[in-house]
Amino acid sequence: MSDTPTELPTFVIALGGNCIVRAGDPGTIDVQTRRAEEAMVGIADLAESCHRIVLVHGNGPVVGNIVMRSEAARGLIPPMPLYIAGADSAGGIGYVLQQALHNELASRGIRRTVVSLVTQTLVDADDPAFSNPTKPIGPYLSGEEAAHLASGSDWVFAEEFDRGWRRVVPSPLPREIIEVSAVSTLLESSAIVIAGGGGGIPVVASADGRLSGIDAVVDKDWTAALLAAELGADSLVVLMEADRAYLGYGTPDAEPVEAISCEKARELLAEDKLSLGGMAPKIAACAYFAETTGNDALICSSEALTQALSGAAGTRVFRT
Amino acid sequence: MSDTPTELPTFVIALGGNCIVRAGDPGTIDVQTRRAEEAMVGIADLAESCHRIVLVHGNGPVVGNIVMRSEAARGLIPPMPLYIAGADSAGGIGYVLQQALHNELASRGIRRTVVSLVTQTLVDADDPAFSNPTKPIGPYLSGEEAAHLASGSDWVFAEEFDRGWRRVVPSPLPREIIEVSAVSTLLESSAIVIAGGGGGIPVVASADGRLSGIDAVVDKDWTAALLAAELGADSLVVLMEADRAYLGYGTPDAEPVEAISCEKARELLAEDKLSLGGMAPKIAACAYFAETTGNDALICSSEALTQALSGAAGTRVFRT
Repeated sequence: MSDTPTELPTFVIALGGNCIVRAGDPGTIDVQTRRAEEAMVGIADLAESCHRIVLVHGNGPVVGNIVMRSEAARGLIPPMPLYIAGADSAGGIGYVLQQALHNELASRGIRRTVVSLVTQTLVDADDPAFSNPTKPIGPYLSGEEAAHLASGSDWVFAEEFDRGWRRVVPSPLPREIIEVSAVSTLLESSAIVIAGGGGGIPVVASADGRLSGIDAVVDKDWTAALLAAELGADSLVVLMEADRAYLGYGTPDAEPVEAISCEKARELLAEDKLSLGGMAPKIAACAYFAETTGNDALICSSEALTQALSGAAGTRVFRT
Repeated sequence: MSDTPTELPTFVIALGGNCIVRAGDPGTIDVQTRRAEEAMVGIADLAESCHRIVLVHGNGPVVGNIVMRSEAARGLIPPMPLYIAGADSAGGIGYVLQQALHNELASRGIRRTVVSLVTQTLVDADDPAFSNPTKPIGPYLSGEEAAHLASGSDWVFAEEFDRGWRRVVPSPLPREIIEVSAVSTLLESSAIVIAGGGGGIPVVASADGRLSGIDAVVDKDWTAALLAAELGADSLVVLMEADRAYLGYGTPDAEPVEAISCEKARELLAEDKLSLGGMAPKIAACAYFAETTGNDALICSSEALTQALSGAAGTRVFRT
């Protein structure tokens, strides 16, 4: 356990919601488990060559389902706040992922502890996101359904062009991972740690240091970037469906980006030239990590993880 | 972190479901949070004088609510298996407890990491419990409701005298806590660890070491006893509502038990003289721990924890 040399590299890897559910999947646990097993093959490859791994997963469709279930049973059981749904999802998704990785490692004859931590993410109570909720969760609704739900609650809804109304919640920036020292301790023991799931459970602190939950969803790529910076990780890897970032994504002039400096990334982000199909926050989180630590961040598809680590795929974000 | 001397005592404490929800509570998160804060006062007292603490909580009414929500939304979202509901509850309850203890410690000026782990509990696929489900979960139903639910599923229901029908699930004995090394590592760093929540997520292993979830609920006192034995804990403490164990509980001859040997406990359990209002499994789990480790186990109310540790309350179970 404790004979692991301290100079082994630490990788923090952010997994998209698609590591559990993909478009068109029925959403059953059997299919989620199979998706998780597929996603863990690349992670297991990395586990064979690198000793310190932290996984940060999204809670994409799962937390939406938990909230829908809570609403469907409203007449029977008091509905739970969003931050509890987030905590529940960290338990359920964490279990599915840790078992899938355990099994993939076991099939290769490797025994390493894989464990999920329930972690709280501190956010600022006066983060501007709280007066401007933008993160959609849950199903698409009709205008009437949305109005009905909004009337009896403090929920906010926004219309997505052509697809209907969805609840939107604040997505404040993460300021601190409360349990980071536990992540660090476990990494030193060579355990593979799943933490910050769903971006972590958002909490605010009172002046005397007491924490309390707040209804929000922290972007998991930002949480991964902050956690990676706090841990002094050697690399942040953000996995997604696309193979790499593109300038002018979806246009005839789309241009793949193999590597980009933080400075250039910030420039393009400020000019809104890096919209890239929702990739802007991923790039911003990578730039934050690279700027803070001086180490590179990487964006790639989960299938191309091994290639990307050798420089043959993905987009590298670097400080200098 | 690592300067904690290794001889500090380790306590594994099993918390009843009443540390989150008590009879008559509305079941809202605000009330659950308040209950958790009450339950954490005694734990914080212990944290001030003892360095290594593991908490194992039940998931009592919470997992029943999660299953009910899943059923209520059956037409919209595929229902989840019981072991996923258990994993979800470990996330939600773990969060509430770790935050409550963090806050109680913060109010005393103590900064220690408190973190919940998602843990799997290995059970035997051929445990006799699987052909004899006995553990009730979820709400009381009418005979018709139970028959209706049973007809479309593999659920089993049992009637409780005068109160109606409840779903019963297997409650196999725990054989191994898969992530025990992570618990041990964190304890060494002086973190307070919440693990084995709800008895841990029940899994079975295939011949090649692959794990998979199975619908069951492991008794959390047994999980606590096994975890305590695996960790070589100095003490197992099982908290409950009653102040101590009684012989002939509820009869005019009720006799408080201040201390009992494993041998005597086994004798009384075998003769069924220790029914004690559902206390038999608690005594059996304590006897297992005391027998295996030679260290004492303690059963007491959460209010009397500090007194019980000084010998002034509760029931002590000892090997010799």
